[in-house]
Amino acid sequence: MRSAPEILPAGEPPAPAAARIRWLAAPTSSAWLEQAIAHPDLVLLDHAHCERKAAGVALQLLFRYPSDAPLAEALSPLAREELEHFEVVMALLQRRQVALRPLPAPPYGAGLARAVRREEPQRLLDSLLVAGLIEARSHERMALLAQHSPDAELRALYGRLLASEARHFGLYWVLCEQRWPRREVIARLEELAALEASLLAELHPQPRMHS
Amino acid sequence: MRSAPEILPAGEPPAPAAARIRWLAAPTSSAWLEQAIAHPDLVLLDHAHCERKAAGVALQLLFRYPSDAPLAEALSPLAREELEHFEVVMALLQRRQVALRPLPAPPYGAGLARAVRREEPQRLLDSLLVAGLIEARSHERMALLAQHSPDAELRALYGRLLASEARHFGLYWVLCEQRWPRREVIARLEELAALEASLLAELHPQPRMHS
Repeated sequence: MRSAPEILPAGEPPAPAAARIRWLAAPTSSAWLEQAIAHPDLVLLDHAHCERKAAGVALQLLFRYPSDAPLAEALSPLAREELEHFEVVMALLQRRQVALRPLPAPPYGAGLARAVRREEPQRLLDSLLVAGLIEARSHERMALLAQHSPDAELRALYGRLLASEARHFGLYWVLCEQRWPRREVIARLEELAALEASLLAELHPQPRMHS
Repeated sequence: MRSAPEILPAGEPPAPAAARIRWLAAPTSSAWLEQAIAHPDLVLLDHAHCERKAAGVALQLLFRYPSDAPLAEALSPLAREELEHFEVVMALLQRRQVALRPLPAPPYGAGLARAVRREEPQRLLDSLLVAGLIEARSHERMALLAQHSPDAELRALYGRLLASEARHFGLYWVLCEQRWPRREVIARLEELAALEASLLAELHPQPRMHS
């Protein structure tokens, strides 16, 4: 298994200071950071749902490709880790007396899902890259919160969780590289990364991890 | 949280020797055990899919009831454990050079799913009880294999995994008892257990964990 490319440009300091991700087409705006810092409970609640959804995405891929052992070996532990994070965030919500409740999703996830091509094997490539991009963006935003949140407990939480998000991006990348030539993966990743950035170009009025 | 009822009748020796489960309406036939022992690789492959599906069922409930914190707190660790078992079984399949591939499902799961009532809150009660019954049956059958398989590695595997299945049955039971009067839970469990036994009354020709 080849190693994943560095998620940070070479020579950069570790994530919290940099909060820049090589594969993201545009960095998060300061408007998002202000919005997120102003609504910590809402972002935390949305974060819980994001971890649950990330586990769901990984498991869905196991169900869609039940013969693909390397996929299953990579994504089953990833799904477990997402669920572990879901439990960590739920416990914090409970301590803060924030009731678990569904939140209307921002247009981000559905916008990315629409870009996934319908025919195989493109469908798998796009699914892996979209999942990876979401992890990369989560990593970038958690790094921002780990650095800039005025709440020490939240800084610590995001600081603990963000490393996994980077690792997950790398894992989705490796799954692509095992199956497609690197040039093809990069070309499609660049297209999807441009879309991903455009979906966040305008701040969604409801505070979310991906607003 | 009240404790779950004993999965074994009081005074019985621990599971592998007894292989009797209080809530199952009928014990597994010796015909199934003979079939399973004659096709260890097929049953193992099906077992991998069962663990994946069990994780899927738990996660599906988290998605269907996104405001239910006690449900999420119970089922997220359960889903993680099922995935861990999926990985253990996958590793053994790989060592035995059995390729991961989908298998046509026996009528068991679909037959139980059809019995789940469509309206809430009955839908939740039935979903929990059906999931619990499947765990109870898996426990019973793994106990049989842990005792009777001629393959020492499989005896050890099933012996290690069967305790979780019993615990998962207890967990689904507790989730029901937290939400409905015990009498109501038992009445519905008895109906579903009768159906579950009837679905296994005739041996399915394809060797499966629930053939």
